Amino acid sequence: MLSAVERKIEQYIIELDDRDVVRLYRKLPHGKRLRAKLILKIAGNSLRVTKTAATVEMIHAASLLHDDVIDDAYTRRNQPSINALYGNKTAIMLGDILYSKGFYELNDIDKNVSKVISNAVTQLSLGELNDVTLSESFNIDKSLYMKMIYQKTASLIEASSEAAAILAGKRVEPYRIYGRNLGLAFQMIDDLLDITSDSKTLGKPALHDFVEGKTTLPYIYLYEKLSADDRSRLVSLHAKRLSTKDQEWIKSQMHKYHIVEQSYGEAKQLIDEAIELMQEAGEPALSGIAKDMIDRSF
Amino acid sequence: MLSAVERKIEQYIIELDDRDVVRLYRKLPHGKRLRAKLILKIAGNSLRVTKTAATVEMIHAASLLHDDVIDDAYTRRNQPSINALYGNKTAIMLGDILYSKGFYELNDIDKNVSKVISNAVTQLSLGELNDVTLSESFNIDKSLYMKMIYQKTASLIEASSEAAAILAGKRVEPYRIYGRNLGLAFQMIDDLLDITSDSKTLGKPALHDFVEGKTTLPYIYLYEKLSADDRSRLVSLHAKRLSTKDQEWIKSQMHKYHIVEQSYGEAKQLIDEAIELMQEAGEPALSGIAKDMIDRSF
Repeated sequence: MLSAVERKIEQYIIELDDRDVVRLYRKLPHGKRLRAKLILKIAGNSLRVTKTAATVEMIHAASLLHDDVIDDAYTRRNQPSINALYGNKTAIMLGDILYSKGFYELNDIDKNVSKVISNAVTQLSLGELNDVTLSESFNIDKSLYMKMIYQKTASLIEASSEAAAILAGKRVEPYRIYGRNLGLAFQMIDDLLDITSDSKTLGKPALHDFVEGKTTLPYIYLYEKLSADDRSRLVSLHAKRLSTKDQEWIKSQMHKYHIVEQSYGEAKQLIDEAIELMQEAGEPALSGIAKDMIDRSF
Repeated sequence: MLSAVERKIEQYIIELDDRDVVRLYRKLPHGKRLRAKLILKIAGNSLRVTKTAATVEMIHAASLLHDDVIDDAYTRRNQPSINALYGNKTAIMLGDILYSKGFYELNDIDKNVSKVISNAVTQLSLGELNDVTLSESFNIDKSLYMKMIYQKTASLIEASSEAAAILAGKRVEPYRIYGRNLGLAFQMIDDLLDITSDSKTLGKPALHDFVEGKTTLPYIYLYEKLSADDRSRLVSLHAKRLSTKDQEWIKSQMHKYHIVEQSYGEAKQLIDEAIELMQEAGEPALSGIAKDMIDRSF
């Protein structure tokens, strides 16, 4: 079924009638197509559903293109990113092309679906903006972090579930919560992997987020646990290149206070709620997707 | 009436419920609101029309934000641009926020209007991409230039006229051609001003386009007229910093072959057609807007 989505995306790209765009699109990694999978699992596979899944994946690809420019990221899924290969200008414009083509196609699907998806794009752009703003100082406010990852990551996954429920005529609420929890947990685990994985697995230096100024949940929890002196030490390392000694100190403190377990536990709680909701709704496949997410790389 | 559009945009911005965005939006120059003016003149001033004009101006502002990043432009209407003040990341994200909020609001106006506008955004993004690609070499193909400025500049003005005609229940065709011609002429004149104006009036160095690699219509026409030797000389200057002597040589050759007159004549022909169409349609105000455009700065 996912192959029908791939073909639909390809058709949309060809309709743009621009050789450069076809060539550039071929350079984009497809990724896991998580959002399309959710949509198909929730809403089956009519043409409307395939189209919705295709537009959402185009929109997601657009957001990653802009995200890589924002983060100065030169790899994406272990391949060079479009901004690395062709520069920021091309990445920005290809993103705008995919966004607007996605919005155009949504007009012919369903007005409510279109509103849910376009609102999610506003949210994820606000989230990206807040991610940059929060990185300017050592953020210790968990609610700001949670709001930002909701906007940046969870909003489009939530919207995908909600849109699929609308298309399938199912009760929207459990699917919305399912999608939101999945998205929040996804980002929380991603942030944890930045701490627990080695550079090789990540394809970027370890503790990269902290070097970039991002105080993700583990740093917020660690800060809460540390003594005044150690707090100062942690804050002094924020947004700087870290020596091996500093890296080891941060990791040892995380270990001492069981920070990874605490953060992981919080992600797991969100996933457990999502699993329970889908068990109640009689959706074992969706429970399975949630289970797989919490198990990845741990 | 334009003030109702400004209030509606402000309301949309406030609905985003993000302090940073409100603050950033205040830094954006409003510009001439040409697209909103066209929409109001064509479709009167119901709430639907005001909303359409507001979304189109938000979308236009988004495109300028990305355009300034693409062009490394640090001023916009003689004020520092958002990318100059807050960096490219903020400009990209603010653009995405304005785009997606615009698309969201279009869902509640009219499906056909929404399709016309979102298609124009695809076109203008393709146009920006092609503008960059064409700048990589000395382009002598007029049809590629015309297609690019149609996409980059005319598409959203055309879409504004067409959308307004749809909302007003008027026959779409003459308004579409009017908008397209206006947009094409607007860009052709803008490209001419880069040659005829001095640095102070432009707020950027003279012959800036050519230095940036853009062979706009006058350069294409000049190339056609020059001898083989002079062609080589012109091509050798492409996309380089120009000495005063080189600048003077280019200007003198433009003068010798009446290139400005030729290019201006072509823009004027498009405007004359637009004026005639609106006279036939009994729209004197729209004829007036077209007349004003061809008269600016000449």
